[in-house]
Amino acid sequence: MGILVIGSVAFDSVETPYGRHKDVLGGSAIYFSLSARFFNVVDIVACVGEDFPKEFIAMLKARRIGTSGLEVLKGKTFRWEARYSGDMNQAHTLATHLNVFKGFIPKIPALLRGSQYLFLANIDPGLQDDVLRQVKRPEFVGCDTMNHWITEKPRELDKLIKKVDMLFVNDSEARQLSSESNLLKAAKEIIRMGPKIVVIKKGEHGLILYSRNVRFMAPAYLLERVNDPTGAGDSFAGGTMGFLSRARRINAASLRRAVIYGTIAASFTVEDFSVNRLLRLKRPEIEARLKAFRSLTRF
Amino acid sequence: MGILVIGSVAFDSVETPYGRHKDVLGGSAIYFSLSARFFNVVDIVACVGEDFPKEFIAMLKARRIGTSGLEVLKGKTFRWEARYSGDMNQAHTLATHLNVFKGFIPKIPALLRGSQYLFLANIDPGLQDDVLRQVKRPEFVGCDTMNHWITEKPRELDKLIKKVDMLFVNDSEARQLSSESNLLKAAKEIIRMGPKIVVIKKGEHGLILYSRNVRFMAPAYLLERVNDPTGAGDSFAGGTMGFLSRARRINAASLRRAVIYGTIAASFTVEDFSVNRLLRLKRPEIEARLKAFRSLTRF
Repeated sequence: MGILVIGSVAFDSVETPYGRHKDVLGGSAIYFSLSARFFNVVDIVACVGEDFPKEFIAMLKARRIGTSGLEVLKGKTFRWEARYSGDMNQAHTLATHLNVFKGFIPKIPALLRGSQYLFLANIDPGLQDDVLRQVKRPEFVGCDTMNHWITEKPRELDKLIKKVDMLFVNDSEARQLSSESNLLKAAKEIIRMGPKIVVIKKGEHGLILYSRNVRFMAPAYLLERVNDPTGAGDSFAGGTMGFLSRARRINAASLRRAVIYGTIAASFTVEDFSVNRLLRLKRPEIEARLKAFRSLTRF
Repeated sequence: MGILVIGSVAFDSVETPYGRHKDVLGGSAIYFSLSARFFNVVDIVACVGEDFPKEFIAMLKARRIGTSGLEVLKGKTFRWEARYSGDMNQAHTLATHLNVFKGFIPKIPALLRGSQYLFLANIDPGLQDDVLRQVKRPEFVGCDTMNHWITEKPRELDKLIKKVDMLFVNDSEARQLSSESNLLKAAKEIIRMGPKIVVIKKGEHGLILYSRNVRFMAPAYLLERVNDPTGAGDSFAGGTMGFLSRARRINAASLRRAVIYGTIAASFTVEDFSVNRLLRLKRPEIEARLKAFRSLTRF
């Protein structure tokens, strides 16, 4: 069985010091699936508007990404506008147009309810919980969230994260969720809150992976130029969950390798705008960069 | 032959979110030598005032740290006051009293002019150059600097770094020195400027080691609490140069290991105020933490 991802499909308008792109393909489910597909079959549950080009759906299908859960709703596709400046560690959202995403209630098609690997990308924790209840005994559940939900839906989020295996958060989210400024203490506290495993993503500074049995740190893959950081987190989750679903064993060794594959996937994503680099990416390039990463970090 | 370090000996008054300590032992030469001494004999060239306690000199001697180059000058010892707040990534200097350091001209005792490993801690690049010219054909020269000298003495610094083997800078100094915001580009540019090897220290985010043949990244050792970051950079240099002087071979493998020893030394330093943790430190603790670091980063 493959991986099921519930998240967003979007048109992004993004400006960075290296360029400006309007209404390009984006969204958490897109970045996740375009990374995870190197390891396994992936199915998307999301919604788009009538303006969503058929060519994009064909592009996903051509990459073993299932779209039976991609609903086409009356109206326009979700749109997000953002600008990155300086060290580009944070997106400054200029506009969010939910469009068809407003009021969207994800329904998992019957055939996908038996999915064993499930990724709940960053949406309302109430919706994430709905989806989780529709899937029958998934083997492994990954979950992303953001500061907005930590502030606005703390009870729903607290309830949800008790049911997930692996929580993906960035450093500021980890601090906010745990009320601990030290990241090691934050990771410990998050594990006390429920998830079995937490990965704290520090952007260009790498990651911390933490569970009762695993403590792991890794730097990010060093690039001479980051053109667009959009989608790095979702690509990271895609590479991580993709590798885990293929390994079929969740242990210290597979978790460490998984987040390195996540790191590599994210490093490709940020090399170009939108999903352009992921669309050109070939599996041997992933393996070559993994090898380079190993040699960069071995001592 | 051992290591020679030229730098400062100071009384620091430091405030962090975890405490406040007045007129405690500090200075680059002190932190450097108290770390490097786990690997080799170290000699200090520096100056202190008449107020410098004899017990401190006895304490250094008891640790195989040579003080024949430590001049006692008329007046008071160099004093530095600083406060760290928030994530403690930067010291906010409240006061600097140069005292005897004002007008200090370092003289290397004849017996130490044959030192093969030399560390030029962060002082005026003109003085660093003076010292370098007093040492006969050192095998390996390490050098630290800071934003102040990059701004105020760019020509002296440019001239100096062409003669050093390894330059130690933090991320903001690397960006300023190279005029490159991307750290990989900054490292490349610094190598073009002269030093054979550059290590960019990113504090809690680890390091980048770069030369024509070596590209290496490592995270910092994750601690639950940093009590006082003072001396982390000099302890890092001490562990690094200490290991290299003991290995007697400068190659990719020894450089990688050296900066990991530097990382470990710095991780102990910041656990307590002043040099308190370094004074209690035992060699087996270093090896145990190196082992822990390996297991934290292996994949």
